[in-house]
Amino acid sequence: MPRYKVTMEYDGREFVGWQRQANGFSVQQAVEEAVDGFCGEKVVVHGAGRTDSGVHARGQVAHFDLSREADPNTVRDALNFHLKPAPAVVIDAAAVDEEFHARFSATARVYRYRITNRRAAPTIERGLTWWAPVPLDHEAMNEAARVLIGHHDFTTFRATACQAKSPVKTLDVLGVRRDGDDIFIDARARSFLHHQVRNMAGTLKLVGEGKWSAADVTEALKARDRSRGGPTAPACGLYLMRVLYGKSAKTT
Amino acid sequence: MPRYKVTMEYDGREFVGWQRQANGFSVQQAVEEAVDGFCGEKVVVHGAGRTDSGVHARGQVAHFDLSREADPNTVRDALNFHLKPAPAVVIDAAAVDEEFHARFSATARVYRYRITNRRAAPTIERGLTWWAPVPLDHEAMNEAARVLIGHHDFTTFRATACQAKSPVKTLDVLGVRRDGDDIFIDARARSFLHHQVRNMAGTLKLVGEGKWSAADVTEALKARDRSRGGPTAPACGLYLMRVLYGKSAKTT
Repeated sequence: MPRYKVTMEYDGREFVGWQRQANGFSVQQAVEEAVDGFCGEKVVVHGAGRTDSGVHARGQVAHFDLSREADPNTVRDALNFHLKPAPAVVIDAAAVDEEFHARFSATARVYRYRITNRRAAPTIERGLTWWAPVPLDHEAMNEAARVLIGHHDFTTFRATACQAKSPVKTLDVLGVRRDGDDIFIDARARSFLHHQVRNMAGTLKLVGEGKWSAADVTEALKARDRSRGGPTAPACGLYLMRVLYGKSAKTT
Repeated sequence: MPRYKVTMEYDGREFVGWQRQANGFSVQQAVEEAVDGFCGEKVVVHGAGRTDSGVHARGQVAHFDLSREADPNTVRDALNFHLKPAPAVVIDAAAVDEEFHARFSATARVYRYRITNRRAAPTIERGLTWWAPVPLDHEAMNEAARVLIGHHDFTTFRATACQAKSPVKTLDVLGVRRDGDDIFIDARARSFLHHQVRNMAGTLKLVGEGKWSAADVTEALKARDRSRGGPTAPACGLYLMRVLYGKSAKTT
């Protein structure tokens, strides 16, 4: 059966998250219904990252199988037609071979956490950023972020409900930079634990406020205890930016 | 009486525009009510630019007089408290001398028009940008924009309802650049005619689509006839970015 890879953008404010839920409208459900609307097929759409309620995506990737071949541009446009008025769109669609799996073939996920650091609350970007009214030292945050880069047991930054088999992950990138009133935390890893980016962001904010030092972050990491980490940053600031694939992602 | 200058950000989607209207909630009304909430005074708040319904601001400037002196930071924080939950905030407040007038002392206004140029509709930025699904040639748009820079009779780009005494204005800056899927049109002038930026943006989009040449823009400008200009671009893409002041804007 022909398999299609779709790259998606969505506004997390309008969904209960990626995954189908009994209690509300998910992006997965939106896409599955759009496929049904397009070709009358009931498919399961597999996403690369199970973004939580309120988390945004600029480059979520998903795949599904159709019984007949279709031009990828037609798939993209038809899904976008049927997704309306939900704030989710297919930016790109491609035919991929049947070995491709949006979740299991992914070699890296790139997340961005956005903080608006100014006295006045966000207006245009409300729901799209975490408001931090107290001045944050982004250089100290970036220094402390270096502590977390590498191969570690991230239990301290893992949601207690996380279902991953192991708390050990390799964090390839964790950088903090400022652009005007915005602070961006960029993170890249093959995969993340549940709430890992938000828990790291909440911890780095403590560093930015001068409440924690980089040494405190080291201690927290070593403790392997969620209660020793900083608070979970809110979903509104988190964006799934990109999902990267190796050879298995080649388009057919 | 002590005069205060406030720099404001707001989300145009939630207002009928800057100016008080009988038919809905304006930013001016929001600020006047916030001043009343803060100190019980009924003031008139004068804005530098009368942004239309749906137009956003990242740096609108306004002024008002209070009967007693107050610390500018207190003014900022108190207005922000009373502005809630409207998506309008005071980013900065300053005490200014009584010769300062937000509208008449302004030496330049800077506007930005945002176009999202991709096949898929905006989701995260819906209501914050003009969607153009057909590929636009931003370099051709930038070339054509040069036609409009300078001292001209802008009747072709003026709303028929415009109340300005003269259609002659000096456009200091009009530049078009691309950043990924976004195209930004930046415009600066001492003042603009009603709908001037949106009418120029709508015309430049015709150039981007290849329907108009720079010579067509020259012809349209020379015609001094609104019916010869391109369509009015929608309000959602327009941002009042900054208002500049000369010596008269000195803070006390």
